[in-house]
Amino acid sequence: MTFNIGIFVQDNAEPLDFTGPFEVFNNTSKFVDSEQISVFTIGETADPINAQGLSINPTYSINTCPTLQILLVPGGGTTKLMENQQVLSWIEQIAPSTNYLLSVCTGSLIYAKIGLLLGMTVTSHFGSIQYLRENYPDLDVDDSKRYIDNNTVITSAGISAGIDMALHVVEKLWGLDIAYKVTKYMEYNWERTDINVNLDHLKSLVDMT
Amino acid sequence: MTFNIGIFVQDNAEPLDFTGPFEVFNNTSKFVDSEQISVFTIGETADPINAQGLSINPTYSINTCPTLQILLVPGGGTTKLMENQQVLSWIEQIAPSTNYLLSVCTGSLIYAKIGLLLGMTVTSHFGSIQYLRENYPDLDVDDSKRYIDNNTVITSAGISAGIDMALHVVEKLWGLDIAYKVTKYMEYNWERTDINVNLDHLKSLVDMT
Repeated sequence: MTFNIGIFVQDNAEPLDFTGPFEVFNNTSKFVDSEQISVFTIGETADPINAQGLSINPTYSINTCPTLQILLVPGGGTTKLMENQQVLSWIEQIAPSTNYLLSVCTGSLIYAKIGLLLGMTVTSHFGSIQYLRENYPDLDVDDSKRYIDNNTVITSAGISAGIDMALHVVEKLWGLDIAYKVTKYMEYNWERTDINVNLDHLKSLVDMT
Repeated sequence: MTFNIGIFVQDNAEPLDFTGPFEVFNNTSKFVDSEQISVFTIGETADPINAQGLSINPTYSINTCPTLQILLVPGGGTTKLMENQQVLSWIEQIAPSTNYLLSVCTGSLIYAKIGLLLGMTVTSHFGSIQYLRENYPDLDVDDSKRYIDNNTVITSAGISAGIDMALHVVEKLWGLDIAYKVTKYMEYNWERTDINVNLDHLKSLVDMT
């Protein structure tokens, strides 16, 4: 059986949110011998998707994609996506049969809207932490970590943190040796630590208004 | 005048090589008020490009793209691209009028082939350092840095190093404050140091054969 990793791409998706994990999982598929890993994009339809100027042709639409072991929802364009009943219903429908639900950045707002994060500790882009706390008081929103693992649901902080989360998933599913091979190939300095000291440092550098 | 940043995408391009810098420059355009920055992809033709499973519709082809201030050539698929006379001729032709030539990963092999790196200190993905040294003995190939700035030509190491190089270019052209705003928005831990201690550490972790 092929291990299917589906990366949803919505209109106005933040490019690195989905291309970072795509890169990680695609390279993982080259290093894992024990099973066939397939990594692909999914659009609401088969039409090209404008991801903030990067035009993507999805491999599948939500009507044609195979059963997934992993679904990843990126951030960007999520305000509009939260009102898209067709996509929300699709995620709600496949969630029980999908082994792992991952989100990057504001992708966690989609899972929150559907009610898939109930009782969990979650994160998002720093710009959406307050929104999550105010609108979903039942969630434990923790903005001190790059990614937070609730076993089958794993949310990450903003944009680049999706790369670190994807590497964490690789370690979790295929082991640390494979994850290190991927970081080495990508020449990437994986932020493995749960506590993101560097993010706090970055936050202190510039006041963004 | 618009400041045009053209990101070439070849068949089999490594996704993060071009999407990482795309993300950096796209966000830069939101923070820079002094001029209009346009970031777009360029294909050999207008047809979709298969970037290792990520299908991209280029904004321009090499026949339609406007005058560039920056050209970026990513790695991946470079063995084939080095034999593509049409693309090599196009780069050779636009190079004198392009303010900055950037490469990520094995993209530097394309510039080397055209003779644009003569007398420079350059880098590439660690897997292609030996190839560059053997085939271009006139180049000073330095594999100890994330990126190397020769003023108008800037080459970076493998894959994720393109993000660090792009941030360096942002600092160089629009200042450190803008670069930090981008890193903060991306929640990215920029490896600003020229000496890449982390890369050496990664190299020591796993023996890749």
